[in-house]
Amino acid sequence: MYDILIHNVTVVTVDADFTILSNGAVALGGGRIQKVWRPGPDDPLPDAAETIDAGGGMVMPGLVNAHTHLPMSLFRGLADDLPLETWLDNHIFPAEAQHISPDTVAPGARLACAELLLGGTTTCCDGYFLVTHFAAAVVETGIRAILGQGVIDFPAPGVPDPALNVATAKAFAEQWRHWSTRLQPAIFCHSPYTCSARTLVAAKQAADELGVLLQVHAAESSVERDRLRREQGRSPIAYLSGLDLLDPNTLLVHAVWLDEEDLQTIAAAGAPVVHCPESNMKLASGVSPVPDLLAAGIAVGLGTDGSASNNDLDLWSEMDSAAKLHKVHRNDPTVMDAETVVRMATVEGARALGLDRQIGSLEPGKKADLIVLRPDRPHLTPLYHPASHLVYAARPDDVRHVLVDGRWVVRDGSLLTVDVEGLMAEVSELARRIKP
Amino acid sequence: MYDILIHNVTVVTVDADFTILSNGAVALGGGRIQKVWRPGPDDPLPDAAETIDAGGGMVMPGLVNAHTHLPMSLFRGLADDLPLETWLDNHIFPAEAQHISPDTVAPGARLACAELLLGGTTTCCDGYFLVTHFAAAVVETGIRAILGQGVIDFPAPGVPDPALNVATAKAFAEQWRHWSTRLQPAIFCHSPYTCSARTLVAAKQAADELGVLLQVHAAESSVERDRLRREQGRSPIAYLSGLDLLDPNTLLVHAVWLDEEDLQTIAAAGAPVVHCPESNMKLASGVSPVPDLLAAGIAVGLGTDGSASNNDLDLWSEMDSAAKLHKVHRNDPTVMDAETVVRMATVEGARALGLDRQIGSLEPGKKADLIVLRPDRPHLTPLYHPASHLVYAARPDDVRHVLVDGRWVVRDGSLLTVDVEGLMAEVSELARRIKP
Repeated sequence: MYDILIHNVTVVTVDADFTILSNGAVALGGGRIQKVWRPGPDDPLPDAAETIDAGGGMVMPGLVNAHTHLPMSLFRGLADDLPLETWLDNHIFPAEAQHISPDTVAPGARLACAELLLGGTTTCCDGYFLVTHFAAAVVETGIRAILGQGVIDFPAPGVPDPALNVATAKAFAEQWRHWSTRLQPAIFCHSPYTCSARTLVAAKQAADELGVLLQVHAAESSVERDRLRREQGRSPIAYLSGLDLLDPNTLLVHAVWLDEEDLQTIAAAGAPVVHCPESNMKLASGVSPVPDLLAAGIAVGLGTDGSASNNDLDLWSEMDSAAKLHKVHRNDPTVMDAETVVRMATVEGARALGLDRQIGSLEPGKKADLIVLRPDRPHLTPLYHPASHLVYAARPDDVRHVLVDGRWVVRDGSLLTVDVEGLMAEVSELARRIKP
Repeated sequence: MYDILIHNVTVVTVDADFTILSNGAVALGGGRIQKVWRPGPDDPLPDAAETIDAGGGMVMPGLVNAHTHLPMSLFRGLADDLPLETWLDNHIFPAEAQHISPDTVAPGARLACAELLLGGTTTCCDGYFLVTHFAAAVVETGIRAILGQGVIDFPAPGVPDPALNVATAKAFAEQWRHWSTRLQPAIFCHSPYTCSARTLVAAKQAADELGVLLQVHAAESSVERDRLRREQGRSPIAYLSGLDLLDPNTLLVHAVWLDEEDLQTIAAAGAPVVHCPESNMKLASGVSPVPDLLAAGIAVGLGTDGSASNNDLDLWSEMDSAAKLHKVHRNDPTVMDAETVVRMATVEGARALGLDRQIGSLEPGKKADLIVLRPDRPHLTPLYHPASHLVYAARPDDVRHVLVDGRWVVRDGSLLTVDVEGLMAEVSELARRIKP
């Protein structure tokens, strides 16, 4: 007997063959996917403690948002359409210095997780400060998360003395390594232009010692690239490679400004990449050579970046933008086809995070992180190709059910783990202090 | 006494000053906006037949989708990620030849209007074939529309003999000129590469004679530009200008491949433009120089294009893409700021269609085409700047109420004018014939 049976559903497995089963079924047990199949028309449905008729909708792996800064939901739309330096120096950094505190990061992160889960994202990879003050809140929402304490060579929220940045991040990772099966700690080293070589190396050593992921913003803007060239005589990627930082456990976030040699370096090291097209567009950072990264076999996940630079955590829109941006940028409508982009938002994102043996596709033995979409919406009618709909038409509100580890998190569009109304009131009250 | 009073609402007027009234109110009467104001805390609310508490949400002008092909919702996601010629010649044109008929255009158009209205679009400008067979269906949905019968120098659905293309379009415009206050006929001349000079001139003459808008796809792709240069010795815009087609009543759709002279030609003629960023991205057509068009004072509306090339009719996503695409393309995060983009999706779109004296902003005397957004959604929390939210975070499902001409069309997320369930079943049945 299964715990949960979902039937009358189009199953988008995102397995190696991108198998799609119309009129399919998925059976869950022990928090894992037990069976994925197409029952014959006369086959009786197997017994399950709970049987869910999906009404002809789609079921697919939960989305993987591979780059977020959860508490920055507090700053959603605080400042937009500004030159990068003005935006950071006059708005975001001062707001962080003044308003990011042990009291504010948890509601900010909780709001972000609510948005993520309601929109079908079941896993996020986050990096921020004061993580010990919101890690438990993240776990409570029911999401799966990788969470890294930020390391930067400036005074930061919770780390006034930069000399303690790596030690602080390491202590968090050490403390949380075995705390939750759904939250894996990581170390989030901000970037090669805000961290010294010594800091970068120490952070990587700490991450390796604990067997956790190192996240690092790398080659995001041309300003960064030019600065590294000027100060280090090489590209950001060559610089990080020279410090021995690149391997499958170092997640390169953005990776926009890459030359051919950088690309080969990343591929040879097996380092994964997170592509954040909407943040890169909005901040005018540039266009990452994602089709080339994929062709080189590099694991490329998708991320929204924080809510201050997007301004939402909508991975459906991110899929749509990823598919369309590269088509127009390459002058080729065949690049970044829908299946490729769905993979990036699920199993390739999981691979980038080192989680693809556990999540990212609907295959027996994997953890039961999955989402069921509503069947009955005009913008999803008619249905010819599920992958096309997922990339070019679906949106967060199409998500009806969300399960993580086989447990209900969103049911019929309602988040079961958070008092969303109360939380929004709390964040709105904080916002009145942030911008009176 | 007013007909409808909406209060406890942030009013995004989109007037010349982009006035925003928090804790504002809007009063409607006789299908028009009568009053827009911020009531004092102790002011009694005026009498109205119906008083709507918006719960702290936003009210704004209904969105204007300035370029659609409504019946193509039948082909949503039928073929994607293909070279343009393969997509057209092997998929779209054959599907149109085989499946676009008097029996299919109405359900296709109705589905598109349902999607538009549910997502807060109250006006669309459409061009397609067999329009006499779906014009009434469009009116019945409650949307405001400009609808042009297609003119093309090939056999087309309903016009097997191209020699009759302009006459057919003119007959429709003549017949429908006074049929409905919400549907204005137009003539939709497909493009300078699919219509001869003679056809283009005849279509324009017919449009002028009847005082209706001429829509024309122009300078969409580099292939078109190269072909016009080769065959006519000039750019598509210079060619159309040479035929005397450009004036404020000729709507140039796409306008991607423009040189400096084209831009001056358009501005001098006062011809309006529709920008369709997502279609241009998905088909890899190119990036229209929209910031330059705006700087030249040209009226630029936003359009989704048809569902076969987008694949939805979501003008929120189109706003988001418009803002972000030009930032990354220009390497400047300050271009296409949120207010500018909201204007394009409302009052500038109305101006492009010649409707800005009637609709496009919440100002007394204008027709009461307006939408109310839900207040209570995580991805819209907190709220610092309404325009930022509208462009970078809002989405179709945030639309709670929609009124056109002061009449309810969508209430609490339900479309009152169409049996949406029955319609989706009908279109899905048609789709099984289109792709068995």
